[in-house]
Amino acid sequence: MPEAFREDDLLEHIRAANASLGPRVQVGPGDDLAMIDFHGRSLLAGVDQVIEGVHFVPGTPPEAIGRKAVMRNISDVAAMAARPVACLASCVLPHDVSADFARRLVDAVRRAAMQYNAPLIGGDTALHRSPGPLTVSVTVLAEPISPVLQPVLRSGAKVDDRLHVTGSLGGSFRPDGSGRHLDFEPRLDEAEALVTSLGSNLHAMMDLSDGLAHDATRMARASGLQAVIDTAALPCNQGCGWREAMADGEDYELLFAVGPKQAVPQVVGRHRTPTRTVGFFRPMPAPDAAPVICMLGDVELAVGTLGQFHDARA
Amino acid sequence: MPEAFREDDLLEHIRAANASLGPRVQVGPGDDLAMIDFHGRSLLAGVDQVIEGVHFVPGTPPEAIGRKAVMRNISDVAAMAARPVACLASCVLPHDVSADFARRLVDAVRRAAMQYNAPLIGGDTALHRSPGPLTVSVTVLAEPISPVLQPVLRSGAKVDDRLHVTGSLGGSFRPDGSGRHLDFEPRLDEAEALVTSLGSNLHAMMDLSDGLAHDATRMARASGLQAVIDTAALPCNQGCGWREAMADGEDYELLFAVGPKQAVPQVVGRHRTPTRTVGFFRPMPAPDAAPVICMLGDVELAVGTLGQFHDARA
Repeated sequence: MPEAFREDDLLEHIRAANASLGPRVQVGPGDDLAMIDFHGRSLLAGVDQVIEGVHFVPGTPPEAIGRKAVMRNISDVAAMAARPVACLASCVLPHDVSADFARRLVDAVRRAAMQYNAPLIGGDTALHRSPGPLTVSVTVLAEPISPVLQPVLRSGAKVDDRLHVTGSLGGSFRPDGSGRHLDFEPRLDEAEALVTSLGSNLHAMMDLSDGLAHDATRMARASGLQAVIDTAALPCNQGCGWREAMADGEDYELLFAVGPKQAVPQVVGRHRTPTRTVGFFRPMPAPDAAPVICMLGDVELAVGTLGQFHDARA
Repeated sequence: MPEAFREDDLLEHIRAANASLGPRVQVGPGDDLAMIDFHGRSLLAGVDQVIEGVHFVPGTPPEAIGRKAVMRNISDVAAMAARPVACLASCVLPHDVSADFARRLVDAVRRAAMQYNAPLIGGDTALHRSPGPLTVSVTVLAEPISPVLQPVLRSGAKVDDRLHVTGSLGGSFRPDGSGRHLDFEPRLDEAEALVTSLGSNLHAMMDLSDGLAHDATRMARASGLQAVIDTAALPCNQGCGWREAMADGEDYELLFAVGPKQAVPQVVGRHRTPTRTVGFFRPMPAPDAAPVICMLGDVELAVGTLGQFHDARA
């Protein structure tokens, strides 16, 4: 039987070739956005997509689909502490799509993009020839907030850094397809407030799209450290416990690492979004140790590669 | 019954809002690439996708799929007489894709992109949850060849301009899915040679992706003129007549308009690709006239909105 596809393996395969991308590439694939030198200025870019049946359920209104497709990308801009510049979108539409549905979808993409000063400058639409899921892929272009506030990568966490999150976690994608994943506000303003107030003490940042367990693993791996998360400290959405806060995706909150002596504001940005300290970074105790450990009282649970939790001593 | 979807109607709907895109947007949706001002430099960007069952047949090797996805975009860069900078790609993979297939696809995208100095800096992959077609969407970033050689739009054709094409046309997508559409070389070098030798006499340019009839209609509409094409002058690929040269898509040749007194080189670029004069532009005889007329000897055939040919006097 052929080897099964795993996204993280493929990403690793892609990252392995980053060194050969040429002198203009400042940040290659693997962070929330890539960054290149464009005539002496840093230009950031990333692409993210939503697929019917994966990121939204059939029957979701086109307004919500178009909005989410853009907001996922704006969330990536926030994760870099950058500022949006423009968007491009490509859609694959069901073969029996109506003109009205297509227009509403495009209008939603355009409106959401303009809301964040990222005008929709290009696009491509195509029709499935046979029944197939609606797909919207959005590319976002961005720039540093200012020449002195450079983008924040996920790879910069240091030993003893405290790990923080904005907002609260879990339960964003309800079983019926509704929930916060359709109407979240990307933490763009919060990210700008954080980088402005913390400066170079903001060591690492990313957005939480695939769940804290998965995403903290990525930050820990990129930084070559182990993240230890205090499950009792996790800010959980209503109806969620620490497992959901760790494992559920689509929160689109910020995960960030700050030096231990640096005070972090308890609320950030004009929406006064709360922040919470949820853990810290330490050296990897062994090369094959789990990159993320959950503390459940005195018990240490390791987060496995499939998102499961197991005794860290096992 | 709801109004059926038509891509050109949707594009018109998108273009209608171009004026409100903000001060940084120099060229909005509707040309081969968009262009924005990025700190005093022009940055071009566009997105284009390939879909199984539409742009390639099931069973096409991943190497050919990934290559075509990139080359369609490099062809758009050539169409603007610009130079590639970087690429991003998003893929929706069949739910039962093997790790080997996914790696070969990504490697093909990366290799094709590097061949044209457009490193793959970002990507997103997702799996269909149920059977669905493989889709690859590529965003390309580009820049003007030099500060003095600005990109060439499709909207700049003038009355009496001669209409030219590179290479030969028709039959690129054979019924079995094979053909030139899988191994064409984008006319990047040819475009640079044209803009370098013709300068500001190169009034308009685009690439031929949907067939000369369709694409000349777009250039004529964007320029507010009528294109008259001499069917006897069309350079046809083997086994093709003027109808196939007009109607078949996926040629990825250049279509360009040049002032009537300007000599156009008969071969261009290091591959010595031939050029051919195939028609000219004249004022629209009436607001509702067809934007493209085919001359068949003395007979004028109008090109309809569905690509059909009919007596221009009807």
